[in-house]
Amino acid sequence: MPSNYRNFRHSVLWLLLFLEAVFIVATYFLYSDGSASNISYPDFQDVNHMVIFGFGFFLAFLKRYGFSSMGFNLLIIALGVQCSMLAEGLLDFLRKRPEEGGLTRISQAVVSMTAVVISTGAVLGKANPVQLILMTVVEIIVFHLSRWINSLFLLVPPNISMMHVHLFGAYFGLAVSSRFSEPLPRCEKKASTPKSDLRSMLGTLFLWVFWPSFNSLLFVEERSKAIYNTYFALAASAVTAFVLSILTTTDGKLKMTHIRSAVIAGGVTVGYTAHGIKYPWIAMILGLLASVTTILGSYCLKICLNPALRIHDSSGVHFTFGLPGILGVLAQVVLAVI
Amino acid sequence: MPSNYRNFRHSVLWLLLFLEAVFIVATYFLYSDGSASNISYPDFQDVNHMVIFGFGFFLAFLKRYGFSSMGFNLLIIALGVQCSMLAEGLLDFLRKRPEEGGLTRISQAVVSMTAVVISTGAVLGKANPVQLILMTVVEIIVFHLSRWINSLFLLVPPNISMMHVHLFGAYFGLAVSSRFSEPLPRCEKKASTPKSDLRSMLGTLFLWVFWPSFNSLLFVEERSKAIYNTYFALAASAVTAFVLSILTTTDGKLKMTHIRSAVIAGGVTVGYTAHGIKYPWIAMILGLLASVTTILGSYCLKICLNPALRIHDSSGVHFTFGLPGILGVLAQVVLAVI
Amino acid sequence: MPSNYRNFRHSVLWLLLFLEAVFIVATYFLYSDGSASNISYPDFQDVNHMVIFGFGFFLAFLKRYGFSSMGFNLLIIALGVQCSMLAEGLLDFLRKRPEEGGLTRISQAVVSMTAVVISTGAVLGKANPVQLILMTVVEIIVFHLSRWINSLFLLVPPNISMMHVHLFGAYFGLAVSSRFSEPLPRCEKKASTPKSDLRSMLGTLFLWVFWPSFNSLLFVEERSKAIYNTYFALAASAVTAFVLSILTTTDGKLKMTHIRSAVIAGGVTVGYTAHGIKYPWIAMILGLLASVTTILGSYCLKICLNPALRIHDSSGVHFTFGLPGILGVLAQVVLAVI
Repeated sequence: MPSNYRNFRHSVLWLLLFLEAVFIVATYFLYSDGSASNISYPDFQDVNHMVIFGFGFFLAFLKRYGFSSMGFNLLIIALGVQCSMLAEGLLDFLRKRPEEGGLTRISQAVVSMTAVVISTGAVLGKANPVQLILMTVVEIIVFHLSRWINSLFLLVPPNISMMHVHLFGAYFGLAVSSRFSEPLPRCEKKASTPKSDLRSMLGTLFLWVFWPSFNSLLFVEERSKAIYNTYFALAASAVTAFVLSILTTTDGKLKMTHIRSAVIAGGVTVGYTAHGIKYPWIAMILGLLASVTTILGSYCLKICLNPALRIHDSSGVHFTFGLPGILGVLAQVVLAVI
Repeated sequence: MPSNYRNFRHSVLWLLLFLEAVFIVATYFLYSDGSASNISYPDFQDVNHMVIFGFGFFLAFLKRYGFSSMGFNLLIIALGVQCSMLAEGLLDFLRKRPEEGGLTRISQAVVSMTAVVISTGAVLGKANPVQLILMTVVEIIVFHLSRWINSLFLLVPPNISMMHVHLFGAYFGLAVSSRFSEPLPRCEKKASTPKSDLRSMLGTLFLWVFWPSFNSLLFVEERSKAIYNTYFALAASAVTAFVLSILTTTDGKLKMTHIRSAVIAGGVTVGYTAHGIKYPWIAMILGLLASVTTILGSYCLKICLNPALRIHDSSGVHFTFGLPGILGVLAQVVLAVI
Repeated sequence: MPSNYRNFRHSVLWLLLFLEAVFIVATYFLYSDGSASNISYPDFQDVNHMVIFGFGFFLAFLKRYGFSSMGFNLLIIALGVQCSMLAEGLLDFLRKRPEEGGLTRISQAVVSMTAVVISTGAVLGKANPVQLILMTVVEIIVFHLSRWINSLFLLVPPNISMMHVHLFGAYFGLAVSSRFSEPLPRCEKKASTPKSDLRSMLGTLFLWVFWPSFNSLLFVEERSKAIYNTYFALAASAVTAFVLSILTTTDGKLKMTHIRSAVIAGGVTVGYTAHGIKYPWIAMILGLLASVTTILGSYCLKICLNPALRIHDSSGVHFTFGLPGILGVLAQVVLAVI
């Protein structure tokens, strides 16, 4: 279908050019120079590293999308960061808030991009590039509106509302995914190979290593506590992931999908509470519960929910980020009550 | 052997669950919140990065254990770090020492895990997962006891005694390795492919890049000197490694095993002395000697010692970490005398 | 040709040994201990990471040189950093300037090594190891002489003159490359595979992530501004690279070579000006122009210039680093005039 293809090519082209032009013009009006900020550069760099490499490899689990998913990950992040800064800048301008430091702005934009990258995981192999680019722009705008509503009506502090990225990303991705027709069961696009699984495992290692940086980036005052608790949650999570993976396997091989998801579940769960947990054993128990939730969830979802709701979730973002996120919200409520 | 396998599966399962429960209970009694510490987060992150990626890839040199070794590396580190913090906490509690900052504790635990990871290198392809997990727990406890004896009777400062990790890890691994029967000469489990060698080289690059962080992490006051001298030692080591690799090759191809081991030998050797060496040329000479020791050692060991003592050392930890460690101790003594 | 090979082996051997001996002796005379410096360790580590992994993978694009190029990259950097410190130390000694801090010296040496690594990209697959080692030594000395002339006669501040690395490296490499005979069109040495292309893309991701660290390393006072502007330029560059890659493709596949080069062009271009640009939109426009220059340049050079001048540029350093560098110089002049 050469004419179709030519149309498609043109639409990507003009869409990207138009967006880039909007960003440059908006930057001209909205931003002055990058003043000093309270986020240090090495901390930002960790999160930047994690988003590009961690999620880049994490999404590279489909055989046919090895290069594409890493390349598109870069494109989506480069595009989305600019879009996110623009949305944030506009909202700040409307609310007449003072401008924040340059690095703080970029950091918030990179953190909020996590939502988009997680959503991409749900629609990978089904959406075409134009759809991915449109999803990026729409999702970022909706996310910033939801944060604005959060801070305006529910009085949630901005750094807490930023930690909704996992939940928001997972369910936004599932909602978008349910609009696509499910691929055929034995379709090549769905297939993964041992090599692509290894790439995905590598991405998980990046996420595991840099998750403490992610959870502590926006909590400048309680940094050391956030790092400490996240590390404990991740360690407990990793051990539990292996235990459950051994328990649920039937043929003696560790199931890569389970380990991949459950290893980082602890980090997702303590996202809201890491800066406030007083004793590390609470973080460890949350990490353990998060792993259990993820692996039980992955079974339940595959058997009951997904066929019923006709959801097809390419990289399992529902149980990797969605369920641990819900657990995190519950934990936050329980801890606040106590 | 399905019944055997089921037994094995169950033992791993209960062992891990039991350990994780012990850790959570112990954390409940031993630790309060993570107070501020004098180790900065980016420095810790470098070492965390190095242990997960550097040793993860370094150990991934066997064809059959590509994924397993990286996955088990993560499991062993997540388990061992908790175990190490528990052992350290217990000893501190018995000696009624004040609690250290949260990040300092995790950093020490990660550094002491290096010993276990090095030992794993010696038994890879021979030990099964239960044995690896048991070895992790036993080795960490013995290591902390040895450090306690060091500081109690020999009055070695705690940050110096921590630098024994390489020596301790290498010889503990060799001792464990000698208890296993040697695999058959042409066994598939021993084989490595060009691709797995490339992975291993990648691990070496990670170790090379992050070794200055490792050597300087626990020497807060002499940080910049430790970094400076380690960098010089590593640079001299890398050049010498290539020289010797050209010298000893017969068919014109660089021997990957030699380069892999000798490139980081300089960093191991200056571990004890990097913070105290006054002039960088001393560090460079130590780096040069370390490389020579490693490559000569790898020849001598293969021909004389290993067959005599029936030691089978999968990834050559004896000459990669053991011999340069001994050279480092000698250098420390010589420099102290001068 | 065994005798030839033996000669060659011996010459590499003695050359490296001789150089290493010179370095040790020179360090003995030139350097005292590494005093404190104004460059923080995490910032240096980022650049170290970038040079080893970013350029290591970036150069690993030839099928036959997968391991060799990463290994030689390490050798060249370990050798060149010592050589660069020696050259810098000698010039400082001759000009009777006070010694700089230890980490500052290593940082400057690592940054100036970028020139050599870029030149290596132009001659890869044609030069043998002896030639590469000789080129490293000669290029570093010439580069430091050029910096010396710059600061003596043109009064360029030392951190600005350091940013000439890209331009210097690209054109030095092209000059060396033009001395070699062009390889045969279908020669296996020139070939790249999808896998080696993927490695090269990975290198580009490392460069993209760490480029803000590179551009801001030597500008201690304007750090946050340099980071901010470089990030914007890179983001605009990445989006434009994908746009142009879609525009210029004919068969619907994204051309990896174009993306690889154009994604980082923005970073190269703002190297001179990142610390001084007042508004981020200027950086974004420079990033956009840099990408366009690179991709247009890659077409023009292939069709017109290269056949005429008989230049064979293995990894396209001319349009990846040379042309954006020239654009950067022009931008600097224009901004200075305004």
